[in-house]
Amino acid sequence: MSKFQSKDPDFERKIRNRLSGQHFMHLMGFDLTNIKAGEVTGEMDLAQKHLQQYGFVHGGVTATILDITMGFAAYSLMPLGKGVVTANISVDYLNPGSGDKIIAIGEVEKPGSKMVFCTGKVYTEKDGVLTLIASARSVMAVIDAAIDL
Amino acid sequence: MSKFQSKDPDFERKIRNRLSGQHFMHLMGFDLTNIKAGEVTGEMDLAQKHLQQYGFVHGGVTATILDITMGFAAYSLMPLGKGVVTANISVDYLNPGSGDKIIAIGEVEKPGSKMVFCTGKVYTEKDGVLTLIASARSVMAVIDAAIDL
Amino acid sequence: MSKFQSKDPDFERKIRNRLSGQHFMHLMGFDLTNIKAGEVTGEMDLAQKHLQQYGFVHGGVTATILDITMGFAAYSLMPLGKGVVTANISVDYLNPGSGDKIIAIGEVEKPGSKMVFCTGKVYTEKDGVLTLIASARSVMAVIDAAIDL
Amino acid sequence: MSKFQSKDPDFERKIRNRLSGQHFMHLMGFDLTNIKAGEVTGEMDLAQKHLQQYGFVHGGVTATILDITMGFAAYSLMPLGKGVVTANISVDYLNPGSGDKIIAIGEVEKPGSKMVFCTGKVYTEKDGVLTLIASARSVMAVIDAAIDL
Repeated sequence: MSKFQSKDPDFERKIRNRLSGQHFMHLMGFDLTNIKAGEVTGEMDLAQKHLQQYGFVHGGVTATILDITMGFAAYSLMPLGKGVVTANISVDYLNPGSGDKIIAIGEVEKPGSKMVFCTGKVYTEKDGVLTLIASARSVMAVIDAAIDL
Repeated sequence: MSKFQSKDPDFERKIRNRLSGQHFMHLMGFDLTNIKAGEVTGEMDLAQKHLQQYGFVHGGVTATILDITMGFAAYSLMPLGKGVVTANISVDYLNPGSGDKIIAIGEVEKPGSKMVFCTGKVYTEKDGVLTLIASARSVMAVIDAAIDL
Repeated sequence: MSKFQSKDPDFERKIRNRLSGQHFMHLMGFDLTNIKAGEVTGEMDLAQKHLQQYGFVHGGVTATILDITMGFAAYSLMPLGKGVVTANISVDYLNPGSGDKIIAIGEVEKPGSKMVFCTGKVYTEKDGVLTLIASARSVMAVIDAAIDL
Repeated sequence: MSKFQSKDPDFERKIRNRLSGQHFMHLMGFDLTNIKAGEVTGEMDLAQKHLQQYGFVHGGVTATILDITMGFAAYSLMPLGKGVVTANISVDYLNPGSGDKIIAIGEVEKPGSKMVFCTGKVYTEKDGVLTLIASARSVMAVIDAAIDL
């Protein structure tokens, strides 16, 4: 059960339809696994392409999957004809990331008609053990989005 | 001329050697074009793989190239045996990004022995005209880095 | 019960001794009401001096009491001889603040030997009803603090 | 000469009229010294009331005068009937602050009809020498402000 109610009962289908245009998400190999009103989770298997020179998950990977899950969490609450774009994202990197899998969870903290405030968390999973590697906040700006597929 | 002096006169070669391990940077197609003490610039041609569902540059692309250029700007000032990792990055998205090319500039604002404060800017270029699409700040933490290639 | 254990069993007394030097906190009239390892709460009655021109709590008041409670939450986990200073604070203003009382809670999310990551929340209380008006994150830098009173 | 043009030619008077309601600003003793379209400067003499327990300027003081100068810089560009409130402020503390005087400069980086992006800097002055102690960014949300005095 989500703490929010979407203004669009068909929000999950609307988000799934949007994913085909998420080219950078596909380049990374990330996918959404759980879409609720105001809370979106996604994950991917970690591979060499996601790493930086110390052998850990690239900070850009972490920021990207936070942006995606927080953005879709905000979008899940939008009425038809409205979309969101990121105005500000702030990411704290708590631990170096390594493991088999990476998981991001984006949540709406405070929805609004002009701005939506979100929080996000990223975990890596190794041998079934989760480690919190980043924690974030974002301000999403509500825009008119002509096309709701 | 840079406003900073590196503690390692060979800093440009040290950074170039690090780039081979920047797998996520290579996946995107980004490369560094100008390395000065405390200021690093990079760019890439924009392609469909960098976009989100509205046809603009993905916020994760922008955050990633900011993280890379600010991180290497901080690293350029490190003495041998020291590296940096991102503690916090905060990105403001000023304009939607589109065009032929994307350019990121990372600069050190305040170096320190434990933390380095940086600023960054991202521009898109279309028909020779630059548009500032994002502006950022980051806190880089200084770490012991056993291997200086 | 706190999820953290302090390295200094006498941390509450140590923090109380520090408060006499918190001149700006006293100017505002804020005081700490609950000190646990890694979690510090404080509050004050709201008065005209805390307001801005729209009649709401000044954003600077909110940022200040977040900085104080997150700072002392980090400090509560420090061993003797170590202190903390704020490296970065990022505050999201979720709702305009008004009411009889304002309450801030600072919590450690991830302690470390060089940096401590914290989160904070601010509520206003009116007729017994709490409203979340701000949510924040901070990066605290660990410093050598000669004087532990 | 400012790089911006205000939509309200009388913006300086409008800001001066607002200051009487800035109760928390008056409690601190801060005042605006230079008001241009998109750029506002203010200062105050430092006194014991502005300090924290290490004898340096309180982080809350710094955050407050950044919020004030960035907020009024954004407000200076607003048309009649519009105001601004802070959505997000992120402050990096570069150096400990001490001296005779503290000076804050807020500037608009990118104005917009829904959001205004700003940057800010704080300096302390001692014996005529300026030290940059903090650097900040903020996202200001444009609101309908019934009363333009």
